[in-house]
Amino acid sequence: MKFATFTHAGRRAVGVVDPQKGLVWPLDDVLGEPVADMLDLVRRYDEIEARIRPNGHALALADVVLDAPIPRPFRNILCVGKNYHEHAQEFAASGFDSSATSKADAVPAAPIVFTKAPESVIGIDQPILHRAEVSDAVDYEAELGVIIGTGGRGIARKDAYAHVWGYTIVNDVTARDWQGRHKQWFLGKSFDTFCPMGPWIATADEVDPENLSIKCWVNDELRQDANTRDLIFDIPTLIETISAAVTLYPGDVIATGTPAGVGIGFTPPRYLAPGDRVRIEVEGIGTLVNPVAAG
Amino acid sequence: MKFATFTHAGRRAVGVVDPQKGLVWPLDDVLGEPVADMLDLVRRYDEIEARIRPNGHALALADVVLDAPIPRPFRNILCVGKNYHEHAQEFAASGFDSSATSKADAVPAAPIVFTKAPESVIGIDQPILHRAEVSDAVDYEAELGVIIGTGGRGIARKDAYAHVWGYTIVNDVTARDWQGRHKQWFLGKSFDTFCPMGPWIATADEVDPENLSIKCWVNDELRQDANTRDLIFDIPTLIETISAAVTLYPGDVIATGTPAGVGIGFTPPRYLAPGDRVRIEVEGIGTLVNPVAAG
Repeated sequence: MKFATFTHAGRRAVGVVDPQKGLVWPLDDVLGEPVADMLDLVRRYDEIEARIRPNGHALALADVVLDAPIPRPFRNILCVGKNYHEHAQEFAASGFDSSATSKADAVPAAPIVFTKAPESVIGIDQPILHRAEVSDAVDYEAELGVIIGTGGRGIARKDAYAHVWGYTIVNDVTARDWQGRHKQWFLGKSFDTFCPMGPWIATADEVDPENLSIKCWVNDELRQDANTRDLIFDIPTLIETISAAVTLYPGDVIATGTPAGVGIGFTPPRYLAPGDRVRIEVEGIGTLVNPVAAG
Repeated sequence: MKFATFTHAGRRAVGVVDPQKGLVWPLDDVLGEPVADMLDLVRRYDEIEARIRPNGHALALADVVLDAPIPRPFRNILCVGKNYHEHAQEFAASGFDSSATSKADAVPAAPIVFTKAPESVIGIDQPILHRAEVSDAVDYEAELGVIIGTGGRGIARKDAYAHVWGYTIVNDVTARDWQGRHKQWFLGKSFDTFCPMGPWIATADEVDPENLSIKCWVNDELRQDANTRDLIFDIPTLIETISAAVTLYPGDVIATGTPAGVGIGFTPPRYLAPGDRVRIEVEGIGTLVNPVAAG
């Protein structure tokens, strides 16, 4: 199933989405009991899953505002850097990569994990704010996002997928000048509006995460065109590595890294500007579109 | 004033502390209205400050369990790396510093900001868990912690102190092998129990943050002995820099960086081991003690 967070008639709710039919069923109605938000759904999913049978009154997707599926993650979003070979090369060559000192170590030997502030999340169609006086090197990064279901520490590779609740699309928007200047990437990754997420979450049973086409267009020009099979560190490796250090919790978001074709990969770099429109498509999930606006 | 979070008779509460008298006044009693937790106090402080007159029934500090002043920050803790000259040199020389490639760039030209998971926070006397199978390079880092009161974006240096609510002590415990191997520092900094914080928060009016002795002992051996006047990037600069990128919120914690004398600064390195005891003293705030235990 696909679950979205949406606002209708001034009220925010969680619903089951059928993109083909263009419909969303409010989960409160489907279940006959309140579901507070997406985190509440994730935490109680095993208990209520069997009772989720979308029927009865549905709303047209065209009549609701889609919010980010998790509008405010309960802590910072976990992000993986340089997790596709070609992107690792293009980023290391850009001059902004504080994690590599030469072409020889462009490709990381272990997952690079940083975070984005939870308040940077926005939903589909919401503008990525471009504040030229703060950064004129704003870049897009199309990524597959993993939503953790059952948490845990010390999760082994072989058990990792049992801890995944679903998948979404994340645009890991980045101020390249800040990313380079401040060495650690948190600041350049966490500007307000720098984490478009959505349009919804596809549950794990719907998607083969190891074979998903991932594409990104800027103003209808295809910039990124890759497949998640080319991840350097696959999802089980990421979950094993992160959870060896840090306990994972239901609702944690892991952005798995971006493929080649970001703005910094061009000579000269092709950064985002107000008026641009970024569209990301991940097979089996959907399409995430965000305009860029002066902030 | 000094405010602590404590547990007494199975109930967690916030109180006003008088360390000299060894007493804590539960804030609910002092105000005659409930204060949910430290974040609630920070958010409502301007409104209720004038009514906080500790009197009436007090508890002996010896009879309560002190928790971390903010037991669960509302998002990741903001941390500053390499913010004292001598420490920047010792860390760059250690071989674990992914942010510097030579002695020439050991001292950062701009603040290095990363985060720690909010669930890594523990209070005074709680054990730092040492999981030898995950890391045998666990190190201490004594730091002054800044607690944001009024949030904001684009806070200028000259206005920065008006946004500080108080100060506490943070031990930015670090798995050096993870910090080096994973390039970005989040994982090595965010192991469960790797953020001792406390023993309480001293409000901004009590402390001159630009002239505080900061000391750290391991098993009664003095290891770190510095003064906050030697910060490379002072608190107004940190607040201006961070808030230019990321909106700050009430209750945000900024750990300002550690001075020289961490375990990695010795040859060979002197890492923490089960049975050790780390004691940090920051002038005008108090003393934070944590044992190290096998985890």
